[in-house]
Amino acid sequence: MNNKTEMNETKNTQRTMLPEPTLRRLPWYLAYVTMLDNLHVEHVSSTQISKELNVDASQIAKDLSFLNIKGKTRIGYDVHKLVKELTDFLGFKKKHNAVVIGAGNLGAALMQDKGLSQYGLDIVAGFDVNPDLVGTTMCGIPVYGIDELAQRQQEYNASIAILTVPVEHSQQMANTAIDCGIKAIWNFTPFRIKAPDDIVITNTSIYAHLALIYNRMGTRK
Amino acid sequence: MNNKTEMNETKNTQRTMLPEPTLRRLPWYLAYVTMLDNLHVEHVSSTQISKELNVDASQIAKDLSFLNIKGKTRIGYDVHKLVKELTDFLGFKKKHNAVVIGAGNLGAALMQDKGLSQYGLDIVAGFDVNPDLVGTTMCGIPVYGIDELAQRQQEYNASIAILTVPVEHSQQMANTAIDCGIKAIWNFTPFRIKAPDDIVITNTSIYAHLALIYNRMGTRK
Repeated sequence: MNNKTEMNETKNTQRTMLPEPTLRRLPWYLAYVTMLDNLHVEHVSSTQISKELNVDASQIAKDLSFLNIKGKTRIGYDVHKLVKELTDFLGFKKKHNAVVIGAGNLGAALMQDKGLSQYGLDIVAGFDVNPDLVGTTMCGIPVYGIDELAQRQQEYNASIAILTVPVEHSQQMANTAIDCGIKAIWNFTPFRIKAPDDIVITNTSIYAHLALIYNRMGTRK
Repeated sequence: MNNKTEMNETKNTQRTMLPEPTLRRLPWYLAYVTMLDNLHVEHVSSTQISKELNVDASQIAKDLSFLNIKGKTRIGYDVHKLVKELTDFLGFKKKHNAVVIGAGNLGAALMQDKGLSQYGLDIVAGFDVNPDLVGTTMCGIPVYGIDELAQRQQEYNASIAILTVPVEHSQQMANTAIDCGIKAIWNFTPFRIKAPDDIVITNTSIYAHLALIYNRMGTRK
């Protein structure tokens, strides 16, 4: 086992570009160990996590090697410390300012989801073209006209734009957001956004997930 | 080209178990061609779609071969027909009854997202344990106590449960839903749900997507 080298290479690496599958699994581990922590369980092994989550134990050990935590032989990881390390590592403790672009339907829904702030996402404002929405607040969050984005950005300095506009406006609104200094776009539209390389684009394709459910239900009857 | 065989094998296949990547891409095509249709564009080639969406043209042709539509040489696909075929094929035209389990935060948000019904998802009821929520309605959708699920299911006969409960209740609530005849679980919790093979589980890991955004932003500065 020359895990040591890997550990050294990847310690203090909040800024390491983690593999996407690892980033997908780490929140599963966090969910599970948070549950254990609430039940006052003190230690957990990768074998235990493996049984519960159906992920290979060696994969779990590898994923967790990115973190600044070491399991003890025969005892496993300190649960409380693991919760803390995972939360920090995933960026859920830090506050990230975000704006919602498109404050109808899904956009409005996300503005009303208080759960996101527990994961470090602080929605500070919404933007829309609909005169019925502009000037209102949703759960205390103000909604402005989209033409105010540049000006408001100076005030809020948000780094993330949550894109929930109708698909035909996706690209144009993404461009506007980027021009206003947005660094990452969380794209909920089914449109493939094009952006410069230094802009982070993450797609959450809820309609594709629906299509997947429908298809799988159809074939499993 | 022996595309013919493939076409024959896969025609009339609303019930074919499609590859997940194909199911992820089809909604992108739909979004794009819907836009073209709104602009009264009549034909589109896979090459054109390819340029717009950064997907290989041969991959697009292959994905679209699952559908009951054929492109014409040098002209391409009929845009209007492609919109209709994709919408039907993805199940967005059909009505699918769904219940939300966990009507706080994200659950409430999804109940208020009228956009989902345009994609065939009809949320008919919410369920929760919170006495402040039970007995209320959200956008006209009633919220019941979770103990009423079995009884209400007889009335609603929903096939899909949208799971938005706190992580420590995920598995138990999934079990309850399955016992009540739910066929598919759209899991928004970070917990890995275990279920019998004939139950469809689809995970939408929005917190994992947040972790991905945070990580990528950190490494790109």
